[in-house]
Amino acid sequence: MNEREISSAVIKRLPRYYRYLGELLENDVVRISSKELSERMKVTASQIRQDLNNFGGFGQQGYGYNVEYLYNEIGKILGLSATHHMIIVGAGNLGQALANYDFSRIGFKVIGIFDINPRLEGLAVRGVEIQMLDALETFIKNHNIQVVTLTVPKKQARGIAKQLEEWGIRAIWNFAPTDLNLSDCVCVKNVHLDESLMTLSYNLRNRGKEKYSYKSYMED
Amino acid sequence: MNEREISSAVIKRLPRYYRYLGELLENDVVRISSKELSERMKVTASQIRQDLNNFGGFGQQGYGYNVEYLYNEIGKILGLSATHHMIIVGAGNLGQALANYDFSRIGFKVIGIFDINPRLEGLAVRGVEIQMLDALETFIKNHNIQVVTLTVPKKQARGIAKQLEEWGIRAIWNFAPTDLNLSDCVCVKNVHLDESLMTLSYNLRNRGKEKYSYKSYMED
Repeated sequence: MNEREISSAVIKRLPRYYRYLGELLENDVVRISSKELSERMKVTASQIRQDLNNFGGFGQQGYGYNVEYLYNEIGKILGLSATHHMIIVGAGNLGQALANYDFSRIGFKVIGIFDINPRLEGLAVRGVEIQMLDALETFIKNHNIQVVTLTVPKKQARGIAKQLEEWGIRAIWNFAPTDLNLSDCVCVKNVHLDESLMTLSYNLRNRGKEKYSYKSYMED
Repeated sequence: MNEREISSAVIKRLPRYYRYLGELLENDVVRISSKELSERMKVTASQIRQDLNNFGGFGQQGYGYNVEYLYNEIGKILGLSATHHMIIVGAGNLGQALANYDFSRIGFKVIGIFDINPRLEGLAVRGVEIQMLDALETFIKNHNIQVVTLTVPKKQARGIAKQLEEWGIRAIWNFAPTDLNLSDCVCVKNVHLDESLMTLSYNLRNRGKEKYSYKSYMED
């Protein structure tokens, strides 16, 4: 299996395949043709075949896809069988909301939450106590942390991210509304909520005007 | 100005231009060349020129871009000068966290929050009281609501979204981890947190292996 030339567009679609296959599994569907899958997912059957061919195919002529097998294989490609210990830096409303999520299903377990606000110190979210930022470096080293969810205000984000990089963090899930400008050694995945809402604003304003190509705007 | 054929890729980049120009404005920068802007934003200067030419250009040979003018024009294209009254359906951790955000800067004002949990009834978030779902239809009609932030569990999401469509909602900012399957009359912008984190998982797993094309994975 050669994964060297997979485009980021394909990678972004994999979690969606994984979600749909998970729903099929829950409904006890054993196999599915690329045509049926394409109708459910509203992408073309040829797109599905092309995407999955990047990883060696998985389909069988005349049979389609074995749902459980394909689900598990995509999970492996996404690396979901690993367990990453994750910390959340920034225990404001969003940080606490994320701490309440169960991301362990997809391989991420929150084992630490950090903030600078002394009023939050010791407060537990889902059984994990909020600690002060001055304990961060030691915690990262002692627990060999590689993944951080960053939910601090914009002004602090770049400085903290730079420190996290120096302390050996390899991946940042960034909710601060700024680019972090780190080296290529750190994977960054941004969730820019403002920008997401702005595209909805654009679509509301231009609705009707662009009816014919509307579908494309609806995709994430 | 012909906006009929703007691709969704361009639309997605506009909020990022808007953010960078906003930062330049804060730092009292009056004008900027496409070369400087491209270095800051880490996209090519020709990409910037192409993107902005979709809307008529804005640049001047030998001068570059007037930062304030371009910022305002992109704001207009994104429709940010409008004010949309928005409600949040689902007052769990994430719904409450979003209710605490100030999205009025980009034209969205939260004026209602709804849930089915009676223990939340009357609790105020940022001055807005949580109401029960049975008051939703009347509220939407009385306040002419067109935009909903949907933060309910996956199992309820499609049913509620269908109702919202029937009640005349035109845009849904969807955080439920499912596709809503509505008609083209409703704009949907999905924020699938699980899927975002899965791509980070993929990148962690494949880091090194794909060093040469790493940049592309780091983009949002």
